[in-house]
Amino acid sequence: MHKLKTVSILALLGAAATLPAEEAAATAPATAAEALFYIDNLWVLIGGMLVFLMHLGFATVESGLCRAKNCTNILFKNTLVPAIGFITYAIMGFSLMYPGEAWQVGRVLGFAGFGMGADPDATIAQAMAYNGHFTYWSDFFFQGMFAATAATIVSGAVAERVKVSSFLIFTFFYVMFVYPVIGSWGWGGGWLADLNFHDFAGSTFVHSVGGWGALAGVLLLGPRIGKYVNGKAMPIMGHSMPLATIGVFCLWLGWFGFNGGSILSAEPTKISFVLVTTMFGASAGVIGALVCSSVLLHKPDLSMTLNGCLAGLVAITAGADCVSPTSAIIIGLVGGVIVVPSVLMFDKLQLDDPVGALSVHLVNGIWGTLAVGIFAFPDAGYSFLAQLTGVLAVGAVAFPSALLIFYAIRKTMGLRVSEEEELRGLDLGEHGMEAYPGFQFFSNQ
Amino acid sequence: MHKLKTVSILALLGAAATLPAEEAAATAPATAAEALFYIDNLWVLIGGMLVFLMHLGFATVESGLCRAKNCTNILFKNTLVPAIGFITYAIMGFSLMYPGEAWQVGRVLGFAGFGMGADPDATIAQAMAYNGHFTYWSDFFFQGMFAATAATIVSGAVAERVKVSSFLIFTFFYVMFVYPVIGSWGWGGGWLADLNFHDFAGSTFVHSVGGWGALAGVLLLGPRIGKYVNGKAMPIMGHSMPLATIGVFCLWLGWFGFNGGSILSAEPTKISFVLVTTMFGASAGVIGALVCSSVLLHKPDLSMTLNGCLAGLVAITAGADCVSPTSAIIIGLVGGVIVVPSVLMFDKLQLDDPVGALSVHLVNGIWGTLAVGIFAFPDAGYSFLAQLTGVLAVGAVAFPSALLIFYAIRKTMGLRVSEEEELRGLDLGEHGMEAYPGFQFFSNQ
Amino acid sequence: MHKLKTVSILALLGAAATLPAEEAAATAPATAAEALFYIDNLWVLIGGMLVFLMHLGFATVESGLCRAKNCTNILFKNTLVPAIGFITYAIMGFSLMYPGEAWQVGRVLGFAGFGMGADPDATIAQAMAYNGHFTYWSDFFFQGMFAATAATIVSGAVAERVKVSSFLIFTFFYVMFVYPVIGSWGWGGGWLADLNFHDFAGSTFVHSVGGWGALAGVLLLGPRIGKYVNGKAMPIMGHSMPLATIGVFCLWLGWFGFNGGSILSAEPTKISFVLVTTMFGASAGVIGALVCSSVLLHKPDLSMTLNGCLAGLVAITAGADCVSPTSAIIIGLVGGVIVVPSVLMFDKLQLDDPVGALSVHLVNGIWGTLAVGIFAFPDAGYSFLAQLTGVLAVGAVAFPSALLIFYAIRKTMGLRVSEEEELRGLDLGEHGMEAYPGFQFFSNQ
Repeated sequence: MHKLKTVSILALLGAAATLPAEEAAATAPATAAEALFYIDNLWVLIGGMLVFLMHLGFATVESGLCRAKNCTNILFKNTLVPAIGFITYAIMGFSLMYPGEAWQVGRVLGFAGFGMGADPDATIAQAMAYNGHFTYWSDFFFQGMFAATAATIVSGAVAERVKVSSFLIFTFFYVMFVYPVIGSWGWGGGWLADLNFHDFAGSTFVHSVGGWGALAGVLLLGPRIGKYVNGKAMPIMGHSMPLATIGVFCLWLGWFGFNGGSILSAEPTKISFVLVTTMFGASAGVIGALVCSSVLLHKPDLSMTLNGCLAGLVAITAGADCVSPTSAIIIGLVGGVIVVPSVLMFDKLQLDDPVGALSVHLVNGIWGTLAVGIFAFPDAGYSFLAQLTGVLAVGAVAFPSALLIFYAIRKTMGLRVSEEEELRGLDLGEHGMEAYPGFQFFSNQ
Repeated sequence: MHKLKTVSILALLGAAATLPAEEAAATAPATAAEALFYIDNLWVLIGGMLVFLMHLGFATVESGLCRAKNCTNILFKNTLVPAIGFITYAIMGFSLMYPGEAWQVGRVLGFAGFGMGADPDATIAQAMAYNGHFTYWSDFFFQGMFAATAATIVSGAVAERVKVSSFLIFTFFYVMFVYPVIGSWGWGGGWLADLNFHDFAGSTFVHSVGGWGALAGVLLLGPRIGKYVNGKAMPIMGHSMPLATIGVFCLWLGWFGFNGGSILSAEPTKISFVLVTTMFGASAGVIGALVCSSVLLHKPDLSMTLNGCLAGLVAITAGADCVSPTSAIIIGLVGGVIVVPSVLMFDKLQLDDPVGALSVHLVNGIWGTLAVGIFAFPDAGYSFLAQLTGVLAVGAVAFPSALLIFYAIRKTMGLRVSEEEELRGLDLGEHGMEAYPGFQFFSNQ
Repeated sequence: MHKLKTVSILALLGAAATLPAEEAAATAPATAAEALFYIDNLWVLIGGMLVFLMHLGFATVESGLCRAKNCTNILFKNTLVPAIGFITYAIMGFSLMYPGEAWQVGRVLGFAGFGMGADPDATIAQAMAYNGHFTYWSDFFFQGMFAATAATIVSGAVAERVKVSSFLIFTFFYVMFVYPVIGSWGWGGGWLADLNFHDFAGSTFVHSVGGWGALAGVLLLGPRIGKYVNGKAMPIMGHSMPLATIGVFCLWLGWFGFNGGSILSAEPTKISFVLVTTMFGASAGVIGALVCSSVLLHKPDLSMTLNGCLAGLVAITAGADCVSPTSAIIIGLVGGVIVVPSVLMFDKLQLDDPVGALSVHLVNGIWGTLAVGIFAFPDAGYSFLAQLTGVLAVGAVAFPSALLIFYAIRKTMGLRVSEEEELRGLDLGEHGMEAYPGFQFFSNQ
């Protein structure tokens, strides 16, 4: 009993790690620090699961906003992306993104080795030695779920004409190399972190990176057949607004894990504050797009309103931890408002983006990142210049990289399905099956 | 080291709050009380996220149970409601509902001021000073998610004929004033709380309040064209049972957060007990409606069974924390059984409620609240009379308030779409788009 | 203050349980052990909620993979199953599965009494006396959610021809007796536990048990009309790939609770490791089925890929806690690969399984259980022989039991709908309603 007491008090003082782990595990009662480790770790895992839900969100919002004849194809791509993304990230992405001390080229490129691994039988003390808030495996789970997101964003923009094999190969390289290297600059402790560039949960490192990939794909693929006739954009309606709405709600809910989990602990004030600013960003984005679409398009447009919600979420992601609720509402509102003219502008430029991914993820990823330089709490010390530097630097690497990958694929195996297949639909062409067997459609849908 | 030890022991004794916060944060190890605060707070936030999922549930169940030509319109309304609700609640709803000591008119009306705010950089000790279980922001997040629910309930009852702008204005006023003032009587510490009226998670304060609003809307709008012909109710089928089923499962899952989160801590016995009674209420509601619809309608009706599930959930909501599992099964079973004749009765009265919101939320909100007076554990000390008083008082204020708002809207901007628009569908009339472009429908669907 | 200090130090040493509970509750500050109890308990409840989500997953994947004319019927069955399952489990399933010391027949059959119950007002100390990690109610909630899963698996295999009343009666008996008795052999501390048979989260006890029930149903029902013509299997396409995809994502997400929650605590390394291996199993299953279907069927088949995901999840379920990430990938990959020839084989055998439940749950339940004997960490001490014994023993009881129940139902009330009803669709025949009123279909869909 005396010994127990001694161990206990040492443990309470946070000294447990200096004891032989097994002895401590056998004899010491739990400490409050361990309890906090349990809960911080649990929240990071819940965050990862919520980010996983976003993949269902992307699958449904993208398929809902495209035509029924390409629906199976989109669902297929979005099922593959988290699978490929998670495994790719294990091979080397995680290690490229968080190189620790293993920087190879300045603070621009680091690599801590292939594969992954930690002791699955680690004691609490050993697990806490990795990080005070979560285990190695939780870290990988959360970050691996993030990794596939950037590729999924591309999926919507290149929909209805990209070859499925070509897209999957793009995903493989983009998630394996481009996403983690760029991410390492900020989140891995690289040169943008040194500059005090702030991108809380990834307006730039996830959404802009996805958006630049989308832009490269759209440029190299060209528009869908029939989208631009005599220089005029023709409306091509999605086939299911319920599916699109389900998708946006899944993304909205998943974003609480995307942003909230990015606190990387369950610190009560921090996580609750971030959930509130995230909800304000989304809500204001909905209202901004509603008002703007009512004015510009003379009707409250549901697909614009849904994109306004996503725009507000993308925009608040960079600064959800460091702007006031009022600022969050302004950031989301502006995000929701600009998504409408942005969609119209890309159509003017004949950049055919079936789901509005460029306007949601690229334009608002940039807006949200710059907004940190404008709205962040003054004592946070974030500068507009650093934010602009990050935005430009990421674009300057992500966009050419994506162009290069897409171009190499186009040169070798081809990027686009045949005209005949596109007209008939990618579901029959790529997969030999329909999304809705038995239902009657009007021709060419 | 010596100093560390001293601080640590003080902290363990719960005395940390008396130290200068910054010094404590820098030196004291975590206390078990802090760990409990972390986890209570996390559960309240998870509860809020699950309540958010209910908005997807309402969006899909309501659109599934209406016709395809009005589907976009319903999805649109249900996307706007949480956005408007959350922002409205920030402006003054939260402060009206939880006035603290700021009662202005007896214990009937209190208001603690416009807007919201707390220090987003609060230390743990400062955060815990607000409440021992969750932060200011968590409180607002959870309650804000609740707030929009009452308006969403109305949405289903007035579907397929209400002007979208009129409905949104109703939502604004109902969430801003009526819902929080009535809620303050019980949850804000007002006169019903003084009476020991018990409505655990809102059979009355959320569901009946929504149901009274629905009844007012149905009365002032009148039935859909073609619903009652020569005094006989014509069946108007919803367009998608999968959508309706997805909705009910989302609501069922979300209800675990609605009821479980209402414990407002993660106290293990309390939250697990409430999840079990909630699951029993839903399960028994399913079975009750199945049996009753098989007897009365000579077939196991899916839409009745789905509504039976929701009826059981609404009914168990008032007493999920204070009735035995057996009582929970009885309460849910009765809820599921009465939903069937209730739907038939409202049709007899020619009160046209496309989704059965009156039977689910109003009738079962009342039943569940009264059931507390019958089934609650005796030592809880809840009386049938107090429960009845609460039910009547809430109806006496909610229903006329809703009538007044709807009436004022009808007098000024109009409440109902034109006959031509109603026949053609609100999707084209209000939004200029279809929910399912490309699909072929039979005429007038 | 002095007394407070004394109690506190005792509490910190884990001695609180020896104090009179009420006094402790009134005076002692929280202990770290209590905080761990809170969080372990919360994670088990979250696990239960995620398993609940799997019922939505089954409802949508099964209805999506069947024809529109039987969609309402499938949704109906899958709504009833969790309701009946949870209540049945309360009546006697829980008590059969976890008999504690109440073994009646060797270590093969135990029963601790009808009904359920624990003090809903238990103090923390009382609650912790039941189990160090979760309350009685949490235990029941989590296990009750599991219970209905086995019956739901059967639902897909017998779809499109089984009478709804007959299926519900099967569910009642299978969940009440067969599932819990077999489960008690391993999880309840019975003879398979004595053998060190390891089935972490239920490849055998849930998925194979469901799969054996499915096989019995398929055998006694016979194939759907038109499925086998002149000895050749005819393709009968499901009606909605979006619905099927939503279902797989809900199952995938829910599986994190199915496997992660089966740790039965929130121990950080253990739960994070299990989530990672689970995600690897699913991801590799997706890729395995994609590659295999591309080779065997000359196209990347979406429904095969979705089933590959589920196959990988079923396969990793038995060993998610005791195999390396690389092994998890191999187990999932093999699972995804074998699902394709397995589906073809059952079709060769004219065993008509509309959704592929036999290949996913039975074949991969067996594969995953045996894989523990091959891939488990050596120090875990699991043997291939013990695993094989468990697989055979479970099949030797589950399959005949299911045959018996189905046979008794066939002899008394009949198992299959009339030919006329089957051709017209079970939605109209059993429920008098369509799943998609208003939509136009090609005939016989």
